[in-house]
Amino acid sequence: MAGILARYRKSLAERTKHHLGYPYNLDFDYGALAQLQHFSINNLGDPFIESNYGVHSRQFEVGVLDWFARLWELEKNEYWGYITNCGTEGNLHGILVGREVFPDGILYASQESHYSVFKAARMYRMECIKVDTLMSGEIDCADFRNKLLQNKEKPAIINVNIGTTVKGAVDDLDLVIKTLEETGFKHDRFYIHCDGALFGLMMPFVKCAPKVTFKKPIGSVSVSGHKFVGCPMPCGVQITRLEHINALSRNVEYLASRDATIMGSRNGHAPIFLWYTLNRKGYRGFQKEVQKCLRNAHYLKDRLQAAGIGAMLNELSSTVVFERPKDDDFVRRWQLACEGNLAHAIVMPNITIGKLDDFVDELILKRSGWFQDGKIQTPCISADIGVDNCACKLHK
Amino acid sequence: MAGILARYRKSLAERTKHHLGYPYNLDFDYGALAQLQHFSINNLGDPFIESNYGVHSRQFEVGVLDWFARLWELEKNEYWGYITNCGTEGNLHGILVGREVFPDGILYASQESHYSVFKAARMYRMECIKVDTLMSGEIDCADFRNKLLQNKEKPAIINVNIGTTVKGAVDDLDLVIKTLEETGFKHDRFYIHCDGALFGLMMPFVKCAPKVTFKKPIGSVSVSGHKFVGCPMPCGVQITRLEHINALSRNVEYLASRDATIMGSRNGHAPIFLWYTLNRKGYRGFQKEVQKCLRNAHYLKDRLQAAGIGAMLNELSSTVVFERPKDDDFVRRWQLACEGNLAHAIVMPNITIGKLDDFVDELILKRSGWFQDGKIQTPCISADIGVDNCACKLHK
Repeated sequence: MAGILARYRKSLAERTKHHLGYPYNLDFDYGALAQLQHFSINNLGDPFIESNYGVHSRQFEVGVLDWFARLWELEKNEYWGYITNCGTEGNLHGILVGREVFPDGILYASQESHYSVFKAARMYRMECIKVDTLMSGEIDCADFRNKLLQNKEKPAIINVNIGTTVKGAVDDLDLVIKTLEETGFKHDRFYIHCDGALFGLMMPFVKCAPKVTFKKPIGSVSVSGHKFVGCPMPCGVQITRLEHINALSRNVEYLASRDATIMGSRNGHAPIFLWYTLNRKGYRGFQKEVQKCLRNAHYLKDRLQAAGIGAMLNELSSTVVFERPKDDDFVRRWQLACEGNLAHAIVMPNITIGKLDDFVDELILKRSGWFQDGKIQTPCISADIGVDNCACKLHK
Repeated sequence: MAGILARYRKSLAERTKHHLGYPYNLDFDYGALAQLQHFSINNLGDPFIESNYGVHSRQFEVGVLDWFARLWELEKNEYWGYITNCGTEGNLHGILVGREVFPDGILYASQESHYSVFKAARMYRMECIKVDTLMSGEIDCADFRNKLLQNKEKPAIINVNIGTTVKGAVDDLDLVIKTLEETGFKHDRFYIHCDGALFGLMMPFVKCAPKVTFKKPIGSVSVSGHKFVGCPMPCGVQITRLEHINALSRNVEYLASRDATIMGSRNGHAPIFLWYTLNRKGYRGFQKEVQKCLRNAHYLKDRLQAAGIGAMLNELSSTVVFERPKDDDFVRRWQLACEGNLAHAIVMPNITIGKLDDFVDELILKRSGWFQDGKIQTPCISADIGVDNCACKLHK
């Protein structure tokens, strides 16, 4: 077994070194927390109601939740939340709260929303309407307006993407709210869940970025913990308004205690990892890292474009979308995420300029061999990323 | 921060020492795996379909799943499963598969089923019928029969408890199937999910115990990983028939890849913990531990009864139910789980005879002080555990 583990560790180190495609910060050192691995830490049920099981980490969990509630401007006595197992659990929870608030509500989500949003609609047996997107990947509020007008008789539950999965596009929250108001949806007729998977934690640190805040009429925000913060295992943070949870838990009369989370037993180590990094890096540390990521993402986009490779980078985003490499081995080696004609690289805090140079150099070299006649024919991807970003013969 | 962590570690050690109420094996040593905490291991999506993210532990996950599929007698090419985040996720998945197989099916579950079963019904908008229980906590198949006969027009989805939460009662799977057959439900008109949270992994090692096996017409089995096996964080194993998952995933056409799990990102460390323990202890190791637990549970029940304290222990179970202690401090000190007039202690591999003696001695001592006149009046709990097990004045 020792031999298997040693070989496995070696392969993990190699795979960690060559990774660009997923929004995970792979640079962390939790050595100080290794001592806690001997304990079965379980935050059973509600973070704010202590269960009889004593081996928990609620004090750390509540500390992390307080930090996020402050970040998104919701008062201590007005919020409820918990540390989830991943971004999907945050979306499942936010949309469930929305459905409990509006049992006959229709779920609206842009077609570039994360697949967990559509999974939720199916699981919860909700009517779901897909809204078109702009070239950037943002929700198309003109289409949203039409679809709202066609369904005025039912309340609206909206999933707003604070960074879509593929293009890293940020839906315009203010425009979404304005569209709802202008089509006659009063604040007591809609519920907005913000899926902040990656950018929910980056945007607050970007100057001039539009704000995700509970001062606007939103119902919940979720963010992943293993993405920008970095964590050995997936986790996430879910924050919602306490009033919604009170309504939800009044309904579950069959339970002695409040059962307002999706899961029952909950990983008590994840909150400690998050608490540790929040304290070690602090607001300033995150700010610096976010700025570095955005700078490096621009560097990557510029280098790709300079090499004649079609590429796009949304404002506020560190997700660089580009022409899908023709060779699956290359895609696997750099662990790129692909969809249709596109691949993307996500510049996280562990991605240095040196690594980006290695990647682009290798891509240029390999690329010259992917075309039969040796002449590089840049494919047209204007339908995916727009004419301005396409580098094909016609559009360059 | 070092100071906070050192104090926290000390409190965890103390709380771990005094713990009797929850079915967690707190005795494990994963020191050999500490080296893996530096990696962000994520088994995104399906265990059997590799994603582009390279830092995963699918090889260990599939190894663990194979082990469980063999234990529950389902062929390698006929099963599908995954490592979940907890017992609740297993139940949410099993019941969802059942609902997808029978979209208009009614969910039947005994009233002593885990609360996650009723949460699933609510989340999934399923009709749910609660079935009475016998004194032992087992499902009452006479009542089940009546309720089936009243609802013959709709398929049945049944949650069968392989160990209920409070009394550790094992529903009689064979009688459940017989009841279905006798009331005219053919095998293509029902789906059985077995919630094996704790005992699903203990029963296979008990001689003469009725068998949970896919050779019977069941659809899925789930079991927790942090319970009998022991793990730093909650996890579980879910096994179902591949044919059901194929049906499920044909339906989710909006996804490029198969999205058959509840969560998207999945903890890649948990499968390695499970793999490590399965290999280190092996079948024989588990068998010995199960036998020890059952022996020690009998010892605890006998000592309680000898002290004039009403107590019950179901066959096949290591959950000892007894009169709820009057003092909440005592309940918290030993981290007992309580419901109504009852408390329980669950004898796991880390619970020694010495610890049980300490507990009973302290209970006897404290108990003599809980009654105003100094005379112990054993409360009547015959309605909860039966006349034979009650130790009150009338029934002893």
